[in-house]
Amino acid sequence: MASTGSIAGPVQSLINEFSKLPTIGPKTAARLVFYLLNRPRNEAQSLSEAILAVKDKVRLCTLCFSLTEHEPCDICTDERRDRTTLCVVAEAKDIYAIERTGAYRGRYHVLGGLISPMDGIGPAQLRVKELIERVGAEDPAEVILATNPNAEGEATALYLSRLITPSGTSVTRLAYGLPIGGDLDYADEITLTKALEGRRAL
Amino acid sequence: MASTGSIAGPVQSLINEFSKLPTIGPKTAARLVFYLLNRPRNEAQSLSEAILAVKDKVRLCTLCFSLTEHEPCDICTDERRDRTTLCVVAEAKDIYAIERTGAYRGRYHVLGGLISPMDGIGPAQLRVKELIERVGAEDPAEVILATNPNAEGEATALYLSRLITPSGTSVTRLAYGLPIGGDLDYADEITLTKALEGRRAL
Repeated sequence: MASTGSIAGPVQSLINEFSKLPTIGPKTAARLVFYLLNRPRNEAQSLSEAILAVKDKVRLCTLCFSLTEHEPCDICTDERRDRTTLCVVAEAKDIYAIERTGAYRGRYHVLGGLISPMDGIGPAQLRVKELIERVGAEDPAEVILATNPNAEGEATALYLSRLITPSGTSVTRLAYGLPIGGDLDYADEITLTKALEGRRAL
Repeated sequence: MASTGSIAGPVQSLINEFSKLPTIGPKTAARLVFYLLNRPRNEAQSLSEAILAVKDKVRLCTLCFSLTEHEPCDICTDERRDRTTLCVVAEAKDIYAIERTGAYRGRYHVLGGLISPMDGIGPAQLRVKELIERVGAEDPAEVILATNPNAEGEATALYLSRLITPSGTSVTRLAYGLPIGGDLDYADEITLTKALEGRRAL
């Protein structure tokens, strides 16, 4: 818009930069900029430095391909973690979701995506070879396939299951069912079907 | 939470920094961090630098108290702008909202807030003295009070109107009424009352 010439250059630049981020539109971006303008400089500096640090100090763990400051990562080197269970996830962020539950004490393997022929992503584009090598070398008692509950996640889990099962390792998948705190009335048909199929004796 | 020890330090730091911003909760913050991790370093650097630039290069215009890189600001020095009209706003961001309409060609005065006795903000905490001095020195034909349509905005407009009117300057207020594209059915009672009171002959 022509009238934005009246907006101070650096203000408009930061609005543009924030707007590139997911979930942030131009109005939210403007709100963030005016918020920062009203805060002490050291707060803005902390944010600015944290953004560069995440690019400069974070790398992939050579063992599990999670994000880490040190190699191998804290989880891979933690002697208290159960070495007989390996949890396979699509992305490093899925690890944080699982860690927040506190319900898993084993180790992880990050695939770096999911099989998606539509997007040209096959097993060769993922860390499948590395997973198979790890399963062979570490011989875990159980491999948990914790891929997303959607078409790509299912296809990837099925593919990996067929590769791993012959080695004798137990392969499991996260349970499907009603989300806790949810309302049966509002559950979609597929979730409800899965909840019925997966029903357990009390 | 104890389990976040497994999150790489710089990732957690940036999640914390993003979470301090308004409208951004921990989940959105994490999403932004993983987005940046997947982008080239120069994109993160642009954002990082733009944040510092907004703190280091933006100052207040000494005339209208808007945000600017140069003093006086682009609007105050623009010879094509109408010097007979002065639009009074609470915050610099309100200028950008009005500029986006392209419907106003005069100049601005930023109060730096609104009168709010509950928050201990009176005329002395705002740039009211500077406004009265400008009106005296520049003698505009019209002062538009473009404060928010709420209690503080109304009180501030009423207060300023009483100060300025005796000088013979015409004082106006933004119109209240139905928002364009809105539905009469959904308008609140106060807005609808204002729309009726402000009805105009066709």
